[in-house]
Amino acid sequence: MGATAVAVLGASGYTGAEVLRLLATHPDLEVAAIGASSAAGKPITTRYPHLDAYAGRSFEDLQSEDVIERAEAALLALPHGESATVAPALLEGGVGVVDLSGDFRLPADAYPAWYGYDHPSPAWLEKAVYGLPELFADEIRDAALVANPGCYPTAVLLGLTPLAKAGLIETDGIVIDAKSGVSGAGRTPTDSTHFATAEGSVRPYKAGGVHQHTPEIERYLGAPVTFVPHLVPTTRGVLTTCYAPTSSDAATLLATLSEAYANAPFVRVLPEGTLPDSKRVQGSNVCELGVAVDGRTGTAVVVGAVDNLVKGAAGQAIQNLNLMLGLSETAGLEALAVYP
Amino acid sequence: MGATAVAVLGASGYTGAEVLRLLATHPDLEVAAIGASSAAGKPITTRYPHLDAYAGRSFEDLQSEDVIERAEAALLALPHGESATVAPALLEGGVGVVDLSGDFRLPADAYPAWYGYDHPSPAWLEKAVYGLPELFADEIRDAALVANPGCYPTAVLLGLTPLAKAGLIETDGIVIDAKSGVSGAGRTPTDSTHFATAEGSVRPYKAGGVHQHTPEIERYLGAPVTFVPHLVPTTRGVLTTCYAPTSSDAATLLATLSEAYANAPFVRVLPEGTLPDSKRVQGSNVCELGVAVDGRTGTAVVVGAVDNLVKGAAGQAIQNLNLMLGLSETAGLEALAVYP
Amino acid sequence: MGATAVAVLGASGYTGAEVLRLLATHPDLEVAAIGASSAAGKPITTRYPHLDAYAGRSFEDLQSEDVIERAEAALLALPHGESATVAPALLEGGVGVVDLSGDFRLPADAYPAWYGYDHPSPAWLEKAVYGLPELFADEIRDAALVANPGCYPTAVLLGLTPLAKAGLIETDGIVIDAKSGVSGAGRTPTDSTHFATAEGSVRPYKAGGVHQHTPEIERYLGAPVTFVPHLVPTTRGVLTTCYAPTSSDAATLLATLSEAYANAPFVRVLPEGTLPDSKRVQGSNVCELGVAVDGRTGTAVVVGAVDNLVKGAAGQAIQNLNLMLGLSETAGLEALAVYP
Amino acid sequence: MGATAVAVLGASGYTGAEVLRLLATHPDLEVAAIGASSAAGKPITTRYPHLDAYAGRSFEDLQSEDVIERAEAALLALPHGESATVAPALLEGGVGVVDLSGDFRLPADAYPAWYGYDHPSPAWLEKAVYGLPELFADEIRDAALVANPGCYPTAVLLGLTPLAKAGLIETDGIVIDAKSGVSGAGRTPTDSTHFATAEGSVRPYKAGGVHQHTPEIERYLGAPVTFVPHLVPTTRGVLTTCYAPTSSDAATLLATLSEAYANAPFVRVLPEGTLPDSKRVQGSNVCELGVAVDGRTGTAVVVGAVDNLVKGAAGQAIQNLNLMLGLSETAGLEALAVYP
Repeated sequence: MGATAVAVLGASGYTGAEVLRLLATHPDLEVAAIGASSAAGKPITTRYPHLDAYAGRSFEDLQSEDVIERAEAALLALPHGESATVAPALLEGGVGVVDLSGDFRLPADAYPAWYGYDHPSPAWLEKAVYGLPELFADEIRDAALVANPGCYPTAVLLGLTPLAKAGLIETDGIVIDAKSGVSGAGRTPTDSTHFATAEGSVRPYKAGGVHQHTPEIERYLGAPVTFVPHLVPTTRGVLTTCYAPTSSDAATLLATLSEAYANAPFVRVLPEGTLPDSKRVQGSNVCELGVAVDGRTGTAVVVGAVDNLVKGAAGQAIQNLNLMLGLSETAGLEALAVYP
Repeated sequence: MGATAVAVLGASGYTGAEVLRLLATHPDLEVAAIGASSAAGKPITTRYPHLDAYAGRSFEDLQSEDVIERAEAALLALPHGESATVAPALLEGGVGVVDLSGDFRLPADAYPAWYGYDHPSPAWLEKAVYGLPELFADEIRDAALVANPGCYPTAVLLGLTPLAKAGLIETDGIVIDAKSGVSGAGRTPTDSTHFATAEGSVRPYKAGGVHQHTPEIERYLGAPVTFVPHLVPTTRGVLTTCYAPTSSDAATLLATLSEAYANAPFVRVLPEGTLPDSKRVQGSNVCELGVAVDGRTGTAVVVGAVDNLVKGAAGQAIQNLNLMLGLSETAGLEALAVYP
Repeated sequence: MGATAVAVLGASGYTGAEVLRLLATHPDLEVAAIGASSAAGKPITTRYPHLDAYAGRSFEDLQSEDVIERAEAALLALPHGESATVAPALLEGGVGVVDLSGDFRLPADAYPAWYGYDHPSPAWLEKAVYGLPELFADEIRDAALVANPGCYPTAVLLGLTPLAKAGLIETDGIVIDAKSGVSGAGRTPTDSTHFATAEGSVRPYKAGGVHQHTPEIERYLGAPVTFVPHLVPTTRGVLTTCYAPTSSDAATLLATLSEAYANAPFVRVLPEGTLPDSKRVQGSNVCELGVAVDGRTGTAVVVGAVDNLVKGAAGQAIQNLNLMLGLSETAGLEALAVYP
Repeated sequence: MGATAVAVLGASGYTGAEVLRLLATHPDLEVAAIGASSAAGKPITTRYPHLDAYAGRSFEDLQSEDVIERAEAALLALPHGESATVAPALLEGGVGVVDLSGDFRLPADAYPAWYGYDHPSPAWLEKAVYGLPELFADEIRDAALVANPGCYPTAVLLGLTPLAKAGLIETDGIVIDAKSGVSGAGRTPTDSTHFATAEGSVRPYKAGGVHQHTPEIERYLGAPVTFVPHLVPTTRGVLTTCYAPTSSDAATLLATLSEAYANAPFVRVLPEGTLPDSKRVQGSNVCELGVAVDGRTGTAVVVGAVDNLVKGAAGQAIQNLNLMLGLSETAGLEALAVYP
C-alpha cells in the first residue's frame, strides 16, 4: 500500500514548518504539495535548513485545484481568517482538511467578536469536528473537516473535561492561568518577541477575557472561565494552571484522569506529588497532566503541559489526520521528548 | 555626620550578597561587619568578584558580641530558623534588626506547621513589625525588629491590600498564581535549579496550599488564598497574578492604587492597558502594579512584579533600615532597573 | 528477523538517557538491559518521566555476566575511567562495545596526564577504533570496540580533516574556540551549572591547553592545536570555530567539504554566506559545517555545530552501532532537528 | 556649583536609554534635552517605563540650535552615518561631544569600505580622540570630540594593548573570537534577534574580516587581526577571547595587566586561574580581564568581558564625559554589577 498524499498550506510559518518536520518521518504519509504564497519559489531549506529532508523542493503558491489534484488531505497552517476561505473549495473537491487556525472552532456568531470577521462558510463550520482526539476520536474518524484545537485549550480541556464530567470539580468560577513560550506568537519578529525584550521577562498579555482561546475553552468545557495567558522566556512549551472548586482530593482526581486516559497514547498522567513540566514534553506529542488540591480552600489545581508546536498544533493535526485516514493514531508521532 | 555602622549576617548567600551590593553605594551606611560562618575567612571577592568594593575584606564567623560592638543595626540574611535564635541577643544588645528570613513574619503558633520548628523567642516575635514600608511605614520607623516580607507576599500585598481595604474586591476565593526566577531558590545547586533542568522549563512547585508564603499573605490580607508558585527560566524576577471577584472596573481599581501609592517612591502603578513585566524591575527596588478586569466573569486580575532579590529582599530591607534610622527612604536605592 | 538485543550501561546520566530516548524508536534494536548502579532499583520514569516508552522498567546494577547473557552489544555511558575496566570483560564475552567515555580514544601513554589514571587495558585500547563514521566507516564496520568521539572533536574533525588532507589549510597554528551548552557538563548540579550562575553568562573554562579533548583532536588531526572551550547559556549545542592559515578561498574549501560528505547522511555543508547555528541541529544527529575566509589575514574560519548529546554522543554511538551490526547507518536517527 | 546640562541625542534606542538610565543618578550632570526624531512627542516612560525618573518628559525632535542653547555637552547615540553630520554643528556651537557611533573612530579613508559612506567632516575626524579612558585619559580630558569605542574593541584593546606594548605578545597572527548578547544588535526586531531564533542558538556572524570593529581594533592595536563575532543567547554581555603568540607565562602577563591598571577604577584583572564571566559585569562599567597561556603551543589566551551597553557604550561615554568636564571619573558609575 502506498503512502497517502497530503498537502501542507501555509508552510512557511513555525506551525507549517513543524508539520513538515513531523511528516518527514511519517511512514504512511507523503508530502505532495507545500504551499506558502508569501515565500513562493523559495527553496524550503533556504528558510529552514533543518528541513533538509525537503532539499530540492520549494514553497509554492498553490491554488485549490492544485491541491485537489495532488493530495487526498490537506493540513492548513494558514493565518486566522484565511483558512475559512480556503477550506471549503478543498472540501468540495474531496480533500480532507485539518485546519490549524481558529477558523472552525467556534459557532458562527462568535467570530465577529473574537476574531474580527464574519464567518464566510457557516455551513462547513457546522460540519467541522473539534480535533481533540482524546475526547472526540469517533467524530474525528468520520470527519471531512477537523478544527485542530488551540494550544492553550488542548492542555486545559484534557485536564478539566474528565473531572467536570465526573462532577468532581465545579465549573463555576474556574480560573486559568496559562504560560507560553515565545514561538506561540509566530515567526514574525515584533517588539514583544524581540530577544532582548523577552529574555528574563515574565508578563501577562490579553488579560481581562479578551484572548481568542477563551470562547474555545468555554465552548468545550461548557462553562465560563477567567483566562489569562502569560509570555515566559522559553521557545516552546505551554503550561496551564487551572483552579476549580472541589470537595475531592488529589488522589481521586488523578484516578479519574488516569482512567479517562488509560488508552490515550499521548497523555501522561503524573503520580500524586509530581506536577507537569513544560520542558519534559518538548518536541513530543505528549500532554502531561498533574493535580494538587488545596484542601484548606477547597481548590483543585489542575495542571497541563504541551509543546505548543506539537500537541498544541502540528502533532495533534497529524494525530487527527491519522484518525481520519484510518492509520495508526501514533504514526509519525512516536518520538520521545528531547530532554533536557 | 558620619555613616551608621551596620552588620550583614549570612552574607555569603544570594540575598546577603545583594545586601552588600546595594550597601556599597549607600551614602549613609557603612558595612562594619560581614558575617558568614560557613565561608568564614574567605575573601568576599573570591566568592563574589563583582563585589570588588569589598576587596581586602573577608567573611567572618561573627558572634553577637562582635556585632553589638561594631554595629548599630544588623541585616540578617540567615536561613529560616537561624534568625530566630540570633536576633534576640542582638536586640537585647541594642542593635536594630531587619530580618530577611521568615522567622518573624507569622504568629508563634504558625511556625510548627509552616516552618517546622517551635519559635524560640515568642516575646520578640510579638514586637516584630512587618516590613512592608508602603503599608506600615509608621510602625517601621519606631521598630527595633522588622520582619522583612517574602518576595511573593510583597508583590501580592502591594497589589491587593488597597483594593481590599476599599471594598473593591472580595477577599473570599482569591487565587494567586505566582512565577519566580530561579535565584529565589538560593545559591545552593540542586536538581531543580540545574541549568539543564530549569532552562526551557515552566513548572509549579509546592502547590496545594503548602508554600510557606501562604500564611504570610493570608495574615496581612486577612483572608484565605489559594497560592501556587511556579519556577520560570529567568534568574531574577517575581510576577504575581492575583484573581479576585469584583464588580468594579479596571479604571476604578487603578485609580485606587494610584491614590494609595501617590507618595510611594518605589511603586509604579501602570496605566490601563499596560501590565507588569518582571524584566522592567530587574536590579531595582520598584514594584510594578497593573490591573485588568474580566467583566464577563466579574474577576479582577491584579498583577505585581518585583525583583525578588531587591524589592523582594535586600532592597526592601535597606528601605526598612532607612526608615528605622531616620534616613531618606530612598537612600542607596535610587538606581533604575537594568533594562533590557 | 528479530531486533538485536543491546545493553545500555551508565543509563542514569544525560548521555545514557539520550541513548534510551533514541533507542526507543529504533526499528532494529531492542533495549535488553539498562544499567546504572547508583540508581539501581529506581524506575526509569521516576528519574526521567519523558522516557515513558520504558514504563515499568528499572535501572539495574548489572554485572558483566548479565550483559553477556542478555545482549549482543553494549553502549557504555559510564564515567571516564570506569569504561576502561568494564569493557574488556564484555568484549571477551563476545559483546560488541561502543564506549562513549574518553577511555579508548587516546594512546595509553596519554592517560596519566590527560585523564589522571594509568590505562588498565592497553591491549584492548590498541584494538579500539575511533568512531567518527564519516571518516572511519570501514574500520568501524569491522570493530568489536569503538571509541565514540567527544562532542568537541566531532565538530572540529569533521570540519578540518578534509581540508587538511587536501592541503588547503596549514595545520600549524590552528586555534579552536569552542562553545558548549550546559548539558555537556552532565547531570550533577554544581556551582558553575547552577541556573542563576549560567544564565546570562558566557565564560571560558579549562583554557590553556588543559581540556582532555585537546589530545583527542590533535591525535586525529595530526597537529597541535590551541583549544579553548566556553560555557554558553543554552542546554544543548556545541559550536566550534576553528582558525587555520589558508591561501584558499571559501568556495574552494566548501567544495572540498561538500565532496567529502556527498554521501554522508548526517553532515550538512552550508552554502557560502551561511554559517552554522547550534540551534538548527538540536535533537538531531546532524553536524552543520560552514566556512568563511578572511582574505586580509589569510585565515580560514571553519565552523561546526552539533547537538552535544546526539551527534556529539548518543546519536553518534547508535550510528556506530548500526555500522558494527550491519544495519542501515541512519536507522533510528532520521528525526529532524526540533527547531525553533 | 550646579550640575552641567547635557543633551542625549538618539535617546530612543537601547544605547540612548542606557545613557538616560545612568544619568538619572549622576550627581553632577543634568539631562537638559532628550532627542529622538523618530519618537518625537512620545513620553519617555511610554517606551521605557523603567525610566520613571523622566516621568512627564518626552522625546523631542531637536535641532542643533536647541542643543547649543540648552546643553554644554552632548552624548550622541545616533545611527552610524548620522553622527558625522550632526556633531560638527554642535562642536562649532561650543558643545562638547561624545559620539557613541562609529563615525569618528577610523581614518577618513576607511569609511567607504567599512561603513559604506564618504565621511562628511574629515576635519573634525582628525581632531577626534578615541575614548578609551584607561589608555587615552589625557587626550580625552582636553578633547572637544570623543569617539566612544565599540563594545568589542573596548574588551579587546584593554586586554591586548599593555601586553603588546610590553612586547610580551606578538601582534602578528592574532585571532579574536568574540561573543555578544543580543542587545548589541539594537532595539529593532529582526529575524536573527527574534526570541525563538536566538534562544538556544550560538552562531557566528560577519565572519571573514567584514565586521566594522575589525579596523577599529587594528588601528589602535597597530596590527591586523582575524576577528569573528558570535551571537549568544543572553541580552547583555560581550566576551572576547584573544589568541596571540607568546613566549611568556600567565603570571607575567597578568602582572603586566595589573600594573597597567593599578589606578583604573573600572578594570578588574582577575587572579591566575580565574577567567572573565560576562555575567559578572552586567549592569556595571567594569571590564574584567583574565589570561591563560597554552605553553604547549606558545599561545596567550587573553579574555575580556564587558556589559556591551555600559562599559561597551553608555557607561564609557559618561566616563569620557566626566573626564572632559573635569568631574570625578567614576561619577554616576559606581553601581556594582547586578549579579547573579
